[in-house]
Amino acid sequence: MEPSKRVITPQAEDFPQWYQDVVREAGLAESSDVRGCGIVKPYGYKIWDHIKTELARKIEATGAENVYFPLFVPIANLEAEADHVEGFSPELAVVTHAGGEELTEKYAVRPTSEAAMYTTYAKWVQSYRDLPMRLNQWNNVVRWEKRPRAFLRWSEFQWQEGHSVFVDEQSALDEVWQMLAIYKDMYAHMAIPVIDGKKSESEKFAGAVMTTTVEAMARDGKAIQGATSHYLGTNFAKVFNVKYLGADGEHHLAHQTSWGMSWRSVGALIMAHGDDNGLRLPPNVAPIQVVIVPIYKDENKDTVLGFARRIASQLSSMRVHLDERDGQTPGFKFHEWEVKGIPVRLEIGGKEADEKAVTVYRRDTGAKEKISANDAWEYIMKLFGDIHDTLHDQAQAFMTSHIHRIESINDIDDRIGFFEASWSETLESEKLLKERFSIVSRVLPRQYENTVPKNAKCFITGEPAKHDWYFAKSY
Amino acid sequence: MEPSKRVITPQAEDFPQWYQDVVREAGLAESSDVRGCGIVKPYGYKIWDHIKTELARKIEATGAENVYFPLFVPIANLEAEADHVEGFSPELAVVTHAGGEELTEKYAVRPTSEAAMYTTYAKWVQSYRDLPMRLNQWNNVVRWEKRPRAFLRWSEFQWQEGHSVFVDEQSALDEVWQMLAIYKDMYAHMAIPVIDGKKSESEKFAGAVMTTTVEAMARDGKAIQGATSHYLGTNFAKVFNVKYLGADGEHHLAHQTSWGMSWRSVGALIMAHGDDNGLRLPPNVAPIQVVIVPIYKDENKDTVLGFARRIASQLSSMRVHLDERDGQTPGFKFHEWEVKGIPVRLEIGGKEADEKAVTVYRRDTGAKEKISANDAWEYIMKLFGDIHDTLHDQAQAFMTSHIHRIESINDIDDRIGFFEASWSETLESEKLLKERFSIVSRVLPRQYENTVPKNAKCFITGEPAKHDWYFAKSY
Repeated sequence: MEPSKRVITPQAEDFPQWYQDVVREAGLAESSDVRGCGIVKPYGYKIWDHIKTELARKIEATGAENVYFPLFVPIANLEAEADHVEGFSPELAVVTHAGGEELTEKYAVRPTSEAAMYTTYAKWVQSYRDLPMRLNQWNNVVRWEKRPRAFLRWSEFQWQEGHSVFVDEQSALDEVWQMLAIYKDMYAHMAIPVIDGKKSESEKFAGAVMTTTVEAMARDGKAIQGATSHYLGTNFAKVFNVKYLGADGEHHLAHQTSWGMSWRSVGALIMAHGDDNGLRLPPNVAPIQVVIVPIYKDENKDTVLGFARRIASQLSSMRVHLDERDGQTPGFKFHEWEVKGIPVRLEIGGKEADEKAVTVYRRDTGAKEKISANDAWEYIMKLFGDIHDTLHDQAQAFMTSHIHRIESINDIDDRIGFFEASWSETLESEKLLKERFSIVSRVLPRQYENTVPKNAKCFITGEPAKHDWYFAKSY
Repeated sequence: MEPSKRVITPQAEDFPQWYQDVVREAGLAESSDVRGCGIVKPYGYKIWDHIKTELARKIEATGAENVYFPLFVPIANLEAEADHVEGFSPELAVVTHAGGEELTEKYAVRPTSEAAMYTTYAKWVQSYRDLPMRLNQWNNVVRWEKRPRAFLRWSEFQWQEGHSVFVDEQSALDEVWQMLAIYKDMYAHMAIPVIDGKKSESEKFAGAVMTTTVEAMARDGKAIQGATSHYLGTNFAKVFNVKYLGADGEHHLAHQTSWGMSWRSVGALIMAHGDDNGLRLPPNVAPIQVVIVPIYKDENKDTVLGFARRIASQLSSMRVHLDERDGQTPGFKFHEWEVKGIPVRLEIGGKEADEKAVTVYRRDTGAKEKISANDAWEYIMKLFGDIHDTLHDQAQAFMTSHIHRIESINDIDDRIGFFEASWSETLESEKLLKERFSIVSRVLPRQYENTVPKNAKCFITGEPAKHDWYFAKSY
């Protein structure tokens, strides 16, 4: 299970190939016997675990509670909401046989759980006193993918999906934006800047009134949808009969939201920070924050290793790993931990042991500095903050410099990044854009929602523009 | 979502109905639109979460790493190991259509992941240097159940399944018993005594050489299989080609183990400790360890609530909940928290507020005591230990007094509990026992593995006995 010495394709040469190479060489994931489904290896799973732990903490802090609903959804439930079934039916995996018999009622493997949960919600919600009801589940869902890509587009993925119920539109909308803010914070936790805002009619969740999104930018300029938070209005409440008896003695349809973030976030992490040498991980989610590589000869092995172990123990409040493998050269180890994106590497040789010093290497900048061992803990704790900020600033600078204001569809060229334009928001114009350039609307940035569009005319049709939007190719 | 006032059926009247009533009244779970699959509600999920967190910590401490393999298993992989497919094929859910097309290769939804993981293991394991390889995953599996029962026997359940690979039998067997010891510890963590040992040939895992188990006893004397740890020998290694190049330059088949514990443990928890008033939870896994019920009239409401809030804040290092609901009487609240099994209830009325005291009620024994508020934190911390020990001792006493030594199959009568008998371990005799009494072998207790059977002759056939075994009806 050692990493091979195969070269990682440079990003500039072939970004998707670079991504595949990094996923393989860093030991994050690989393909499986099941078409479109992947295997997440220990190192990849640890990154996802760090993301999950922090996200679970944030969700729990809002007061939402965890539940678990079945993996299977009766097809009839899925068909109840017309837009929902139209959106998801091409991607469904269907169980037709179970327990040795053909099923009279077929089940879909959940692609998302609105249709699995809301018949039960109709029973749980009776009175306005039962609301708001805010529930979340951590689970796996299946959406059959024709063109799978590790983490970003596997046929099965892990995520959390929250499903809340409110008395009215305003409280539901407040929740939609509250959860989106949590997702934005999660990306900030991973040092990834995102654009938050609304999706267009054609890009919104199937069955939603409104979808909000956080969009990140890969190092090839493509957009990555980082997480979404939907206002479902009363669309599902109508078909699943989620009603409450109000304080006014009347029955009302409930207003619902759903919101989810998946292990796509691991893909976003790779694509937002990685470089030609592999991963670059922010300390918050790095499985190993500090790796110590001892450099010794036979004659000073005991001294160097003894000193390295003392340093490891001094740093034990961090996620520290001392690489004591005997069969590998320091150069081999450097390469391996570089590919795996460990934020801080300590090199400890005979000289360091003599001087009671450590040489500190930063993965983000490549800078090296020798410091006194006594200062190591404080120095590295501070360094974590610097590395986080540097990764964030680099990603922010890249994103900012790759948003191109255009006034007309004819300004679209092969520049990478997002195009910003004033748009009429019509389905036809979006269709045209997609067909001609494989570009779609990504987000109406929140700061543009209540501003007058910079150009009065739509950049595609010349009709009156409604808002300024970002457009891009996407993963 | 308030608990109804329906009565819980007494255990002595109808234990399975008592169980259903408690699951419903305590708000743990309910049935779903999918036959045999359940919905775990927030209170039930919190209990499972506490179990998971502790089990994950223990597994991680052994050095096993988490991974994730696909939900689906190609049918061909499942069919590779003859015993394995024979054991699981009656329970499989099968996906025949996906992405709008009929699949040429059908997929089973994993009933367990040996067949899903080991083709990949064959790639990962090359040299003896790669071993031991010890991986675990937390996931959901599906085994179609004809007679579902909440937590204990749902068609879908959550669990962890560990899958390890070793160079030889001895190191694999060491792992089997090490993981079983962890499961035994987990039950101790829940104040549940278990019998650990081996399963018989007919009760072992399909495809295993040997299965070990921890068996708990429900309050109606039936056995609950709490968790299992299997030695797979080279059975799967042969068919999936899991081989390693040894230090001797030769290729060898690897020795494998698998081990799992599921949310059945929640069912065991209910059945081992519950009484006619509902759940009784040990503090280790109680979602709320201390509930505070304020008792006030209009004229002293502010005083009482103010004092109750100070107590809640004093106890904030525990999982404490102050029940401030205004519309409910103290009696209603007492009943609700009683059913939910909260270990400690604090009653705080005007008198307590005046005296700076709290009245402490223990769910396990029903004892009440008034103590000084100043002592509350230390008193309750100690009380948690007492409650844990009391629950454990009660369960242990119940189990010990319900193990009946018998010398002949004719001694089997309608006594509840386990029967201990000296057994020949033949398949035929077990079949006979099952047909005549619906009783099966549960476990060869570890302490009897190397002792001479108390009776030289098998209690069923009169053939030479091999060991003393426990037999019982089971959930």
